[in-house]
Amino acid sequence: MNGLMQQQQLLISNLLVHAERHHGEQQIVSRRVEGDIHRYTYRELAQRSRRAANAIKALGVKFGDRVGTLAWNGYRHMELYYGVSGSGSVLHTLNPRLHPDQVVWIADHAEDQVLFFDLSFLPLIEAVASRVKTIRHFVALTDRAHMPASTKVPNLLCYEELLADASPKFDWPEFDENTASSLCYTSGTTGNPKGALYSHRSTLLHTYAAALPDALDCSARDVILPVVPMFHVNAWGLPYVGCMVGAKLVYPGPALDGKSLYELFESEGVTVSAGVPTVWQGLLGHVEANDLKFSTMRRTIIGGSACPPAMMTAFQQQHDVQVLHAWGMTEMSPLGTVCTLKPRHAAMKTDERMAVQAKQGRAVFGVDMKIVDADGNELPMDGKASGELMVRGPWVIASYFKGDGGDPIVEDGQGRGWFPTGDVSTIDGDGYMQITDRAKDVIKSGGEWIGSIDLENIAMAHPAVAMAACIAARHPKWDERPLLVVVKKPGAELGRDEMLGFFDGKIAKWWTPDDVVFVDAIPLGATGKMQKNKLREQFADYQLPTA
Amino acid sequence: MNGLMQQQQLLISNLLVHAERHHGEQQIVSRRVEGDIHRYTYRELAQRSRRAANAIKALGVKFGDRVGTLAWNGYRHMELYYGVSGSGSVLHTLNPRLHPDQVVWIADHAEDQVLFFDLSFLPLIEAVASRVKTIRHFVALTDRAHMPASTKVPNLLCYEELLADASPKFDWPEFDENTASSLCYTSGTTGNPKGALYSHRSTLLHTYAAALPDALDCSARDVILPVVPMFHVNAWGLPYVGCMVGAKLVYPGPALDGKSLYELFESEGVTVSAGVPTVWQGLLGHVEANDLKFSTMRRTIIGGSACPPAMMTAFQQQHDVQVLHAWGMTEMSPLGTVCTLKPRHAAMKTDERMAVQAKQGRAVFGVDMKIVDADGNELPMDGKASGELMVRGPWVIASYFKGDGGDPIVEDGQGRGWFPTGDVSTIDGDGYMQITDRAKDVIKSGGEWIGSIDLENIAMAHPAVAMAACIAARHPKWDERPLLVVVKKPGAELGRDEMLGFFDGKIAKWWTPDDVVFVDAIPLGATGKMQKNKLREQFADYQLPTA
Repeated sequence: MNGLMQQQQLLISNLLVHAERHHGEQQIVSRRVEGDIHRYTYRELAQRSRRAANAIKALGVKFGDRVGTLAWNGYRHMELYYGVSGSGSVLHTLNPRLHPDQVVWIADHAEDQVLFFDLSFLPLIEAVASRVKTIRHFVALTDRAHMPASTKVPNLLCYEELLADASPKFDWPEFDENTASSLCYTSGTTGNPKGALYSHRSTLLHTYAAALPDALDCSARDVILPVVPMFHVNAWGLPYVGCMVGAKLVYPGPALDGKSLYELFESEGVTVSAGVPTVWQGLLGHVEANDLKFSTMRRTIIGGSACPPAMMTAFQQQHDVQVLHAWGMTEMSPLGTVCTLKPRHAAMKTDERMAVQAKQGRAVFGVDMKIVDADGNELPMDGKASGELMVRGPWVIASYFKGDGGDPIVEDGQGRGWFPTGDVSTIDGDGYMQITDRAKDVIKSGGEWIGSIDLENIAMAHPAVAMAACIAARHPKWDERPLLVVVKKPGAELGRDEMLGFFDGKIAKWWTPDDVVFVDAIPLGATGKMQKNKLREQFADYQLPTA
Repeated sequence: MNGLMQQQQLLISNLLVHAERHHGEQQIVSRRVEGDIHRYTYRELAQRSRRAANAIKALGVKFGDRVGTLAWNGYRHMELYYGVSGSGSVLHTLNPRLHPDQVVWIADHAEDQVLFFDLSFLPLIEAVASRVKTIRHFVALTDRAHMPASTKVPNLLCYEELLADASPKFDWPEFDENTASSLCYTSGTTGNPKGALYSHRSTLLHTYAAALPDALDCSARDVILPVVPMFHVNAWGLPYVGCMVGAKLVYPGPALDGKSLYELFESEGVTVSAGVPTVWQGLLGHVEANDLKFSTMRRTIIGGSACPPAMMTAFQQQHDVQVLHAWGMTEMSPLGTVCTLKPRHAAMKTDERMAVQAKQGRAVFGVDMKIVDADGNELPMDGKASGELMVRGPWVIASYFKGDGGDPIVEDGQGRGWFPTGDVSTIDGDGYMQITDRAKDVIKSGGEWIGSIDLENIAMAHPAVAMAACIAARHPKWDERPLLVVVKKPGAELGRDEMLGFFDGKIAKWWTPDDVVFVDAIPLGATGKMQKNKLREQFADYQLPTA
């Protein structure tokens, strides 16, 4: 027997309609590629998104067709989030930090019909325009005055002209909530990128969960600045959360340096932000070098990679900005866990509480998680046992786009399919998950596992270290032993023995790296993560002094 | 093209599994009918809910069968929320404040198979046991020691014995999220009660929305005491919210007097509560008479009927407890709006802000609302136009149980069905809805509408008034004119002229009631609301001095 409730589909356009009706006067502020600050309301967002929907239709885009974007965080990009998905087409956000070959591969694989791009990426577009197979129209996200005087891109269209020509009237269609809404490819450090194809349903459920008090905690009284890019996993869902709760949104555009970000934080009264640790390093550096204060910011959500403890301390103790660790994946829309505290943590001493905050956090409701051993048996939630982290839930993928990337799902014998994250982690009795390593980065020494992330965090706490990576080096007796790769801060002095001595008393003796190499730079991927696979190639033949 | 996300159904059992895994140590505290305080954890709730599921099965209850409860807010009732719905049967919460004839009518209409009840309601059960047609088992929610020595109820079963005999192992079944989960009847002031049949999907979406920062704002750091009864519209969803966010829950059982409530608030560190104004009157009375303070409570959600302004002032200004107006209906699961403020309200003067807080609030995301004129045309959201409030959304009913109660839905010509709430309201440009009256309570004077609620609020602010109702009395010239019915506080002195003079300057002159009658009591319905239809009958032939 079914309940007798209304069958209203969960659609992305509902978010926009709600925002227009209930938060019409709320502001969206964007730093533009053109250099200036743009300011409008949710009411104007809704109207221009309807124009965008008409414009896309006029370009021949059909229900289910993919529409690509190569753009920073800004209001025009947000209009496409709603205009494309709301009208039943699929928003495909491409990552501009990828190599042109990868951009071509991904656009072809997605069969993008139209590509909207910010002017910053004109050189990239010029490099790929003649190579992509399915894109029929290229649209520059700017007005006529800022269009390039000449370009190699054929028939380049101007976004503001398309919008001006389009009607502001558009009835958002109603359709099945399982319809595809958006597409994002993994950064693909090994093999070809794989596409995660989100649905309207998965996006709306994710939005509800993301806004909860124990997740990102967003209300109409918040001013949210997403540093995390809209070109990668939908800026953790914040452009959707904004409409759901009616928060003021502040988009930083291309200016992600510490000074530009700090100015926006202060001038717009930002209360909440979200991003990867590397961005915060720049912001904190600027704030500290100029003896500045955050006057309205009260918390920042840090994900992508683990937040170095020193950064957490700086935010919380020197700036009174609460740091929330979060963890997710492209395959998870992306939110999996957020490290909000339980009441008993309030009574803890600072260092005890910091140890909890160093974890990736508790599952938001909707995501199930467990850790398993090599045979797939579930391991205890005791904060000690570590195994591969498996997840399931309505905003976790069931398969990759077109099936390319293999079948990712592992059945548990009880009819439930789990997505293996590739992360190795613990889960404690309170449900707090802590990633100890990527499955492929863990160092297998004499049959025991050494987590590379712990070693990196310790190294990064040394005042002379700018960046550190720990990788497995071959060892005749132990199979693998840790090798620490370090980038020193400019002008800093640091030797091998001092670095290794810094680990004394901080970890089990046998976890101490066997050697240290100093390098000028560690290769970073398109989402700012260290590419340890490249380091492993580079040091494949490294001769450890202990070997 | 569909998205490629996992098809995980939204099931009530997911909430319990999440709470057990992630909040296993969190407490649930209940004042029992037996008189003592009971305390256990979500882990024990989960285990006993599984036992309850097995016990219900052992009693012959099948998938989709209705299981009735007549019980206060407490842990055993919560076990049935999960045990019954989680196993695929339908939890039917009956309102013990109804007349025995209505209880029989409702239990028969629902075709309840088993009825679980608190000992307080033994006399009611004895009055109906031989009359109900489908109930095969009566179960007292107590242990053997507290079972009645003798009773007219045949084969009375003991809940704790059933649980002790049942296995704690039970695999929650997976099924379609549209499956019926629970059933609640409207209090039916006119005509027969009508059943709202909720689904797992509607319940889970409602739970997400209810926990949002701009709705009830519940986190793992909250201690929630639902005064609003679990026997009526699922205590506004708080037993589900508790599991979703891992909050400590405190259930007051039958002791709803000011002293008992206050003791629980203080001993358990309650931070959030929810209930109807009449309960808060008792609590505030006790606190003020004994010069007490709330040491942990930070907000209370008031719904069911409008909160008198004097009560709001007392909570906020004397006790530093924030009052949030909320509005909903049985047909809406129940949540429709919550009156959380926008940033610009923070800068307002107290009385301006109070005027906003007096409204029922903004729609939580998921609920669409609009006001319409007598012809069904949408009226502007300008805070002035008032019309019948219409709602739609995934936790709003599409029809009543068995279709009995007629087809409630009104189509809007664009393929969308709206539920007419029977409330007359305004909606302002910020989306804040304010009920001016029930459609049937509005006073139609010379073609214009006078809202009875405004007049009642003013009267209630008079220090000598305990309760006031304003109804339409017949008038030869104006058709209807307001008649004020007043219950004085014990020992207070108040005359007709003083009462009418109290309206001076507070409303348009022509809104002033034409007369006042003083009565000993105003009839209250089963959910604590004033029954103005009874007053209208009583004063049907009342001769106004102005007539």
